[in-house]
This record gives sequence, structure tokens and C-alpha cells, in this order.
Amino acid sequence: MQADLLSKDKVIITAAITGGLHGREANKNLPLTPEEQAQAAHDAYNAGASVVHLHVRDEQGVVSTDLSDYSNTIRLIKERCPIITQVGNGIGTRVHPDGSLGDKVTLAERMNLINIEPSPDMMTVNGGTFEFRSPVSDDTFDNNHAFNIEFIEGCKARGYGLELEVYDPSHIANMMDLKKRGVLDGMLHFSIVLGIKGGSPASISNLNHMISELPDDSGWQLVSIGRYHFRLNAMALAMGGNVRTGMEDTVFNNKGEAVSGNGELVEATTSLTRAMGREPATVEETRKALHL
Amino acid sequence: MQADLLSKDKVIITAAITGGLHGREANKNLPLTPEEQAQAAHDAYNAGASVVHLHVRDEQGVVSTDLSDYSNTIRLIKERCPIITQVGNGIGTRVHPDGSLGDKVTLAERMNLINIEPSPDMMTVNGGTFEFRSPVSDDTFDNNHAFNIEFIEGCKARGYGLELEVYDPSHIANMMDLKKRGVLDGMLHFSIVLGIKGGSPASISNLNHMISELPDDSGWQLVSIGRYHFRLNAMALAMGGNVRTGMEDTVFNNKGEAVSGNGELVEATTSLTRAMGREPATVEETRKALHL
Amino acid sequence: MQADLLSKDKVIITAAITGGLHGREANKNLPLTPEEQAQAAHDAYNAGASVVHLHVRDEQGVVSTDLSDYSNTIRLIKERCPIITQVGNGIGTRVHPDGSLGDKVTLAERMNLINIEPSPDMMTVNGGTFEFRSPVSDDTFDNNHAFNIEFIEGCKARGYGLELEVYDPSHIANMMDLKKRGVLDGMLHFSIVLGIKGGSPASISNLNHMISELPDDSGWQLVSIGRYHFRLNAMALAMGGNVRTGMEDTVFNNKGEAVSGNGELVEATTSLTRAMGREPATVEETRKALHL
Amino acid sequence: MQADLLSKDKVIITAAITGGLHGREANKNLPLTPEEQAQAAHDAYNAGASVVHLHVRDEQGVVSTDLSDYSNTIRLIKERCPIITQVGNGIGTRVHPDGSLGDKVTLAERMNLINIEPSPDMMTVNGGTFEFRSPVSDDTFDNNHAFNIEFIEGCKARGYGLELEVYDPSHIANMMDLKKRGVLDGMLHFSIVLGIKGGSPASISNLNHMISELPDDSGWQLVSIGRYHFRLNAMALAMGGNVRTGMEDTVFNNKGEAVSGNGELVEATTSLTRAMGREPATVEETRKALHL
Repeated sequence: MQADLLSKDKVIITAAITGGLHGREANKNLPLTPEEQAQAAHDAYNAGASVVHLHVRDEQGVVSTDLSDYSNTIRLIKERCPIITQVGNGIGTRVHPDGSLGDKVTLAERMNLINIEPSPDMMTVNGGTFEFRSPVSDDTFDNNHAFNIEFIEGCKARGYGLELEVYDPSHIANMMDLKKRGVLDGMLHFSIVLGIKGGSPASISNLNHMISELPDDSGWQLVSIGRYHFRLNAMALAMGGNVRTGMEDTVFNNKGEAVSGNGELVEATTSLTRAMGREPATVEETRKALHL
Repeated sequence: MQADLLSKDKVIITAAITGGLHGREANKNLPLTPEEQAQAAHDAYNAGASVVHLHVRDEQGVVSTDLSDYSNTIRLIKERCPIITQVGNGIGTRVHPDGSLGDKVTLAERMNLINIEPSPDMMTVNGGTFEFRSPVSDDTFDNNHAFNIEFIEGCKARGYGLELEVYDPSHIANMMDLKKRGVLDGMLHFSIVLGIKGGSPASISNLNHMISELPDDSGWQLVSIGRYHFRLNAMALAMGGNVRTGMEDTVFNNKGEAVSGNGELVEATTSLTRAMGREPATVEETRKALHL
Repeated sequence: MQADLLSKDKVIITAAITGGLHGREANKNLPLTPEEQAQAAHDAYNAGASVVHLHVRDEQGVVSTDLSDYSNTIRLIKERCPIITQVGNGIGTRVHPDGSLGDKVTLAERMNLINIEPSPDMMTVNGGTFEFRSPVSDDTFDNNHAFNIEFIEGCKARGYGLELEVYDPSHIANMMDLKKRGVLDGMLHFSIVLGIKGGSPASISNLNHMISELPDDSGWQLVSIGRYHFRLNAMALAMGGNVRTGMEDTVFNNKGEAVSGNGELVEATTSLTRAMGREPATVEETRKALHL
Repeated sequence: MQADLLSKDKVIITAAITGGLHGREANKNLPLTPEEQAQAAHDAYNAGASVVHLHVRDEQGVVSTDLSDYSNTIRLIKERCPIITQVGNGIGTRVHPDGSLGDKVTLAERMNLINIEPSPDMMTVNGGTFEFRSPVSDDTFDNNHAFNIEFIEGCKARGYGLELEVYDPSHIANMMDLKKRGVLDGMLHFSIVLGIKGGSPASISNLNHMISELPDDSGWQLVSIGRYHFRLNAMALAMGGNVRTGMEDTVFNNKGEAVSGNGELVEATTSLTRAMGREPATVEETRKALHL
């Protein structure tokens, strides 16, 4: 598709408040427990985010596959504010507070996330298999077609919205193959993810190329990890896209200083949005745009 | 060259405060006379601009080729603030207050601009000949090699800095030809101009392509005309470039409302600059970056 | 538009047999007089070309504006073979056999080319004004909108096919402006011209960019001047485009040796076409494709 | 890196004579047994190939991990001609003559390929993990960093040349990471592989993007699978690259007809190479270019 410099679309700001790989060693303000995440979601909402992207952790801050932790987190968020909840199915490595690694999350555990109650509004689908390398571990991030097909069909049966995370051009082709097969349908919402080691690096050329590979009638947001975060988000905003921010993606502000929390990152993103003449979408506008 | 998402360079904000084609019918706050332009330059300086791009007009607001009008304008500006003065040599059409057109500015009159006293800090060079079409008139904008060579040599003899305005890929090639011939030397500073009818349209693909065609060690700014102004400037800022704003380029703010003056446009540009973690260059920093 | 790697379209090979700027000093086999050009057109036809692009010269080999020279040349060609005749309106410099320059061709003389009898099948339109620099002279190549509008309307009134020569992205935008105004209509046929000094240089990036700027339903051919000729033509053929060759564009073969004539260049182009699984279009197929 | 339209480099033509996934059902002339592969390698050599890319099969035509099959194949090839032998380490699925699938090839079996005697001249490295989907099966193609590091170090210890197969931009980044770590060094030789389901699709935009992502001083060839084969190879040849052909990549000629054998595909590639003014590299020239 072609980017749109004149887009009047409201900007869907998604807050990825914690991720699953780093802990308080990266930033002392990282929200971990359900209660902390609910507070972070609320801060993000107040600052202009309409979607919260969740990696639920247990009381020790370790990535959880226990549905009760998800229920708890989502319930606490919904008590505070109407922000749209989006659960990331891309979990894999359990890092304990002492830095030791636990058992890898299995495909079955990831599949089970479709059964969360109260149900989240959206799920993410990861567009392809690759080796996800991080300071914590190098893991095969298995997102094979058969798994994705079952997961997507489960999500559709439960009425979840889908966000398709693509880290390479092949992942877009994978998603188009699922559309051709009828597994995916309607308008597709992509997250172009740049900057993960094992995926396409964060660069202007990769951003431009990934946008050009998207089908014409897509929705898209940019997810950019690391120090390119703010500048690439500025480009995405200029080009008519939506953006994600939050302490999963960067724990630093645009001066390279540790952020005080997710609210600060969302505020900065809202300012950037407005500085180029766009407006953050409300929860209601986001529901409409994403057909939730 | 490749754009640089991590550029820590200060941003040179140039204010093109009036242009030469439109008048008060476009925006009632457009500065025309030397006195008004000096005030606009001062406002721009206070808002964060370090360079003012000038199209000097006479007391009736008509584009002038009378060196005394230039002297007057530059003197009045220098009395108010230390902003760097840049004279645009690309003048052509005289539009009278009643809308009638006067004689075309000749190449000899444009050449004569190198004799302005007190001398401006910089001159612009237009990188190639093309038909410049505007609501006022369609004119051959003659920037032939022989003219440019004589003009550049005159500027070099007088110590002026040069800004090379390029509206198409061919213009970059023209400038590289002048570099090969030894007419231009050292680091070149380009203005990529998008959105003039007769030049490359304002689009993401043209911006990306023009940047990719620049030689590796160039300085560059974006000049974007019209409704794409703010979004394209956001892209240029994200990509490590400098930007131009001002009532020559747009008379509307990013909401599409008439601006109150050049100060408002520069303030908006400064905000955008800061929202992505960059800082406007001071006059002193700009002099150093442009080797003035 | 997007290039098409799977195009099954027959390839329209155009032979630009002589041009107007160089003479026998460049290659002793260059056809000059009407009789020689007719023979060259016949050779090109036999080798696979379906269109001959003409710059008619007088008996001394000087670019002509005398309609009787055009009549003569076209009549002699049509006596020999049914190749489609295309007259280039982009003439400017008269070079005498002793190398001295005659009067510049005027816009009125160029406009008069629409009155050739017997009429050619096609005319070229040059998409914009620029300085055309050659070893012979540097000239403003004036293709202003008003001239092009009158010329195109004259061509349409006489039923000529049109080939739109574009040397920069701005020229494509100029043509789209004429389409918007209703001057041009239907499917447009572009010649992307790369390698003229004063136009976009011959490069992969310029070829890709120019293709991407064309409207979706265009026909296009590549015209590449100089040493990049064969490789760029190979790219155009692979990408689904048509190609031009001939002694106007290069007087050397792909080994850098002087060619024996236009037949050799067209034969090489036909071979290249077939080597990638495409076939040259016949005259009849070309008439259909170009709506002649 | 930038492609080079004026490259005078001889073209290294690699013949991938059989692959490991399809059998005689795809084309009755596919070479399977060591004896047939040796004959195919000889045919390819005679037609202009200087490298043969091998997927060794056993006497039943099933992908083999038995080193004696490799020894046998390489010995038979070397008896016939001096073509450079390159073993593909990317094997995974065993397809029996009746179409049933055998055990997946393990990473240990793939690692063991470094012990082939007589040793091949080169090995391929696959640049990243992804799901490789084919009509036969969908498999995680595991090319994790740890495996690649051990494999590359084994190859270096034995003096093998390396060809780095990259199917997505992330794979280029993976290889650059290995260069940064010192695992890879010197000039890198990439195979840009397009058209595998699970990797980047075969398209002009992906070809251009992948080339642009390569480091500046790389060697590269294109591997394009399927019906885009000839046109994409033409582009690669025009752009200064090397090319691969052979019945692993396509079992059809450029008319869509079943090929008679690898010799026919290499002949067609040699013709295409010459049609654009390039020459196939001899074995000796290839050894020099690849530092073997």
C-alpha cells in the first residue's frame, strides 16, 4: 500500500506497558504485577492511549500462562478505564527474578490464551517463525502456519479483534496466504515490528519496504524497538500510520533518559501526534476503526 | 546518501517569510515591505529559526530587483537580530497589487543580486531550468548551467554561503556536474524542494528518492510547498534533515487555518523538532554547520 | 504503476535510427539523408522493430524543419515496409557538416510538424522544459505547457498516436496535469528517458522510481542513452516494459564497439527479448497495443 | 550495496541441479542418483556453469545424510569435470518414492555434512530460521545462530568457501551480526533467495530491497524459485550480480515447457548473460572471485 501524507485518520496509540523479557533491572518503574499493570494501563489511557498491549506476569513478575493472572489483570484494568485490551500471544521465555530461566512456554500454553475470561478485546498474531534473540536468550519463536490457523480460528470464534505482527516481508506474505485460504478476512490490521534481533532491523528502508508490501486496504501501526523508537514513530505518524509505544518497546525517553513510566511515553507520543496535526483516537473511535 | 534516524545534529530551521508570488489575498498577515519583513524575520528568530530566506519586495509589495530594497531589508533585519540572511535568486514574476503582471525579471537582474550591500550571508542557487507554474503565471524558470556557473563564482568571490535548490533528480545531477567541473566544492548543502508545479510533486516516494540521490557527505533540508508541508517536514526531521517553513511555503497551519504570521509557523516547527528529540540550531551552530 | 515480471505482452521495439545531434564523426554508419533513413528503417523492421522514431535531416544531414524532407522520408520508408513512423518533435540544434551551429529551431517550427503529409503514425511529446546539454550545445529545451497543449490538440485532431517522453518525475506530473485538464485522455504511453545531461541520469534507482511514479494503467518504454543502454533495456524487458534502441541512443554495441548500423542494434535487442522469454511485437500487434 | 549496471565482472553461473523436495513427478528428466547428478553437473559445466549446488540423494532418490552418498557424488563429478562443488546444508524433509515422508533430518545430521570426504569446495549457510513450506510439507527450517556459528567454524577449519543464503532482510542482519562477532570475515558472498513460501516472495521490490540491504563490498547471486525465474535472473544479470539456475529452482523453460535437463537451463542462462554483454566465468575465474 502507499502511505498517506494527508491522512485525517485519528491515531490509534497502543501502549505496550511491560513486555515479557526485561524486568526492573532495565527500568525501576516497569510495571509487573497485575495491580501495577492496571495502574500503568490507566496512566496510558489518561495520556492518550486507546489500546493496551499486555504481557501478563505473575506476582513475581515472571511471564505467566496462568489464565487467572490474565483474568485478574484484565479485570483490574477494566475497573479503572475503558481502554481496549490486547493480549500478545508471543510469549516464550520465563525469566525469574534472580535472572535464571524457567521452562519455555509451549505452543499449547500460547494456544490456551484464547480462553481468557473476562476475554480481552484483541489478540495479536505473530506472522512467522524466526529466531528471536534478546539479551536474555535466543529462542525459536514458533509461529507456524498450522498454529496460527488454529489460533486465528479460535479468536474469530470468540469475536476477538486481531493485530498481525510482521517482522519481515515473508510474514506479510504468510498473512496474505492465510487471507487467500479464507482464514483471515476483511480489513487486516498489521503491526510492522522493526528492531527485534532476528527480525528486520529498525531502519527507514525497512519501514518503507514493509509499508509498500502491505495490501492496499490495510490498517497498520509501527512497533519499533530501541533507540530508533521516537524517530521511526514520527515517520509512521507522518505517513498516516498508527503507533505503539510503552516500556516494552523502550525504557528511555527521546533524550535517552530512563522514563518515569508508561504515562510519560504515551504523553510524548500524543505530543508528537499533535505536533504534526493529527489527533489521538478515543477508545470509541478505535473500536470503530478496528471493527471491534 | 542515507538518511540518519539517529542524527544528533541540531536542526537548522529556515524561515522563508514571504516568497514572491502571493500577496495579502492569500493571507492578510503576509509581510511585504522591508519593515514588515524585518519584523517577520525577528519573529522567526525568536521562535527558533536561524536562517531567514528572503524575497525582497518594494514598498508596494512587488518583487524587487532594486538593490537598495535589499540593502534596506537586510539592514533592518540585522538591526533587530543576528539571524542569517539568505537571498533567493529564484525570482521571476512581478505581480502588482491589482493582480496585473509586470515585466519578467531578467537573468541579468538576477545576476546582479550578488552585488547587494550590506551583503547577505547566503544565496540560493536553483539547480535546473523548468517551467514554474503558479496560479499567477507559467514561466520558464531559467537556471541554465552558464548562468549558474557565473552566479556561483560571483558568490564564492564574495564569500557567500550557497544553498542548492533541487526540484528533480536531474537538478542533483546538474549540481554534481558543477562539482566535477570544480565550480562547486566542499560540502554541498541541498534544499530538496517538493510541491512546486513543474517540479517533483510533494510525496513520500519523491522525498525518499531525492535523499537517495544526494552525494554521501551532503547537508540537506526539505522545502515542501502546500498542504503536505507539516507531515513532510516531520519526515525530514525524523530522517536527520533540516527544514524550512514560513509563509512562502504555506499560509496555513497544520489544521488548515490561516496562520497569524511566520512566528506561528516557526513555533510549530520548533515544537515538532523537540517532540522527536531534536533541538533547533542557534545562529552560531548554523554558521558552523554551513561553514559561513 | 508496478512493473510486471510475468508480462506476456509482446515487446514493442522502437528504432531511433539517427537522432539530430551527432553525425558521421560519431559513427560512420549513421543514416542521415531521407534515402539512408528509409534503408535504416527497413533494416530495423527486418530485425524486429515495429516503430521507427525519426529525426528527419536534409540532404546535408542537418536537422530539418522543411516539411518536404519529412514527406520524402516517410514516403520512402512506407515504400519499403509497413513499420510505424513516429516523428520526434524534440528538435532544437542545427549542426552543419563543418560542426558549426545554425539557427535554433523555433517553437513555431516544431509546432508545424503536425502538418506533415503523408502524415506519420505517431508524434512524441516532451514532458517538460529543461536544459538539454550535449557535446554540441547546451540549450533550453522548451516544452512548456501552453506549447504542449496546442501540439497535443493538433495531433489529436489529425489522429496521431502520442508517445510521452519524460526525463524527470516532474514531467510525469506535468502529463498527469494535462490528463486532469482533459488534454490527454485514454491510456497514456510513456517513454522514460534516462541519461540525457539535464534529465535524470541513467541508473537503476531512477528507472525504478520513474516506473513507480507512472499512473497504474500506463504503457511504457525505456529510452536509455549511452553506455548503460543494454543493461537498462534488459531491466525494462524483464519488468514488462517496451524498449527503444537505435543509433540515436547508442552508436556502440554491448561490447563497446562501433555498430555496423541500426539493424545490428535491433537484432541485439530482439535477441535479448527472446532470451528472457518474450517476443517482439509485429506492426499489427503494436498498432493494437498503442491504439493507432 | 548498490547494484552496478556497468559491471564487467564475469558471471558466476551456479547450477542447482536437483534440490531435495520434488522428484520425477515434477519433471521426468530430474537427476536423482549420484551417477545422474554427476552427468547433470557435467552437462551444466559444458553449458557454462562453474558451480554445481548439490542436494545429494540416495539410490532411491531420497535426500541423503549418509556421507558415503556425498563422497560418491562428488567423486563422480570430479571424475568428469572441474566444476566447483557446493553442498547445500539446508536439507530437512525426506520424501520417499511413494510420496510418503520419512524422518526429518536433524541438526546433527546437517552439522555432520562438514565431514564429507572428498570434501566439496563450498558449503551454503542458511541465514535464518523460518517455516519452509512446500507442496510436500511445512517445516520449521531451523538455522539458529548457535548452529550456524558451529557450522561456519567447522567449514572455516576445513577451508570450505561459504555461500550465505538469505530469504528475508532479517537474514542479512543475522549474517552481519556474525561478522561483527568475528564468526564471518572477509568478503561475504550472498545468495538472495526469493520465492520460497515462508521467505520473501519473488518480486522486483524484494530484489531491489535485498540488494540495498547487503553490505557494500559483498558478492551476490540471485536464486529465484518458480515462474519468475528467468525475468528475475535477467534483472540480476543486468544489475551486476551472479545467477543460479537448475532444476532445483525451476523445471520449466522460459516458455513454461518442461525442460530436457539442467544443460538446457544453463544454456538459456548463458545466452541471456551474453545477450546483455556479459560473459560466464570459468571455473578458474570463479575460484578467484570467491577466494576458493
